[in-house]
Amino acid sequence: MQELKDRIMAEGEVIGTHILKVDTFLNHQIDPAFILRMGKELAERFAGEGITRVLTVEASGIAVASAVALSLNVPVVFAKKKKASTQSAVYASQIYSFTRQETVTITVSKKFLPADDVVLIIDDFLAHGEALKGLVDIVDQSGARLAGAGIVIEKLFQQGGAALRAKGMRIETLAAIEQMEPGKIDFA
Amino acid sequence: MQELKDRIMAEGEVIGTHILKVDTFLNHQIDPAFILRMGKELAERFAGEGITRVLTVEASGIAVASAVALSLNVPVVFAKKKKASTQSAVYASQIYSFTRQETVTITVSKKFLPADDVVLIIDDFLAHGEALKGLVDIVDQSGARLAGAGIVIEKLFQQGGAALRAKGMRIETLAAIEQMEPGKIDFA
Repeated sequence: MQELKDRIMAEGEVIGTHILKVDTFLNHQIDPAFILRMGKELAERFAGEGITRVLTVEASGIAVASAVALSLNVPVVFAKKKKASTQSAVYASQIYSFTRQETVTITVSKKFLPADDVVLIIDDFLAHGEALKGLVDIVDQSGARLAGAGIVIEKLFQQGGAALRAKGMRIETLAAIEQMEPGKIDFA
Repeated sequence: MQELKDRIMAEGEVIGTHILKVDTFLNHQIDPAFILRMGKELAERFAGEGITRVLTVEASGIAVASAVALSLNVPVVFAKKKKASTQSAVYASQIYSFTRQETVTITVSKKFLPADDVVLIIDDFLAHGEALKGLVDIVDQSGARLAGAGIVIEKLFQQGGAALRAKGMRIETLAAIEQMEPGKIDFA
């Protein structure tokens, strides 16, 4: 998506070779009209898949996932990072955050992920793929069909996408980065 | 907002006299088209105030705040609950969560809250008012003008709104609850 690549080039801040901050429109401050356009674009790529629900994880995935769900006219469920009080009523998975260097449990109420669902996972970033693997694990537990994942920005060099695609999973990305360093970003 | 009251009556789950779960459309699963209508309604109540930015706190405030910001055609910033790496670049405030019985620090990058802003705070719930007071504190630190707050559901009996209104703050609520118990919700 050219508009996204342009904004990453204009506003993104590369720290070292692995961290990209896009907090002017995606991760801290949100540009709601732009988020809506990105949501529409991701929704269109999965049109015809019969999606019945969008799944994301709090917090920064929520805005774009809501935009995708609005376009697809389906509900969105966001996995929570705090332990739920009644564990029997939720699907749970452990995810490791390389950014925060901690493991957190994400949970989704079973009632919001019935086995006859067709689920589209949406997230803002795909890097090592830990969050995405956790969400896939939860969909697997539910018995629902996974249509694939839609990602705003993928950092290809951190390999999370490659591992999941190798298993046959469809992943659509609006901007995929081959490599980067301060002042320079190479898109795929 | 009658549609919201109807959905709270139909789908809300009251636990004891203080906890209202509305996770079918607001807190865990999100109905994006309904969120958009609620955002439009809150935006209309603050039309003419010259709002330049919407402020909320992660995670469940993000969807409705994005909808309000979309209607007002301004950006939204969500306060983060994790400590930022560079404290000098952020405004910070401590908030106590009665639900989770813990104190967390919320932060907003100074660059997203300039002193000439006119800020509208948006959140999904107003109960004891801890999160709202923390957001007000951050706006005060920034020197920006606070236009007020727009809230989806207010639990009047927990008094957070009364304390802030007594200081002259404008708070608009889409559904205000006087009292409740399982099977019975009295709206103001």
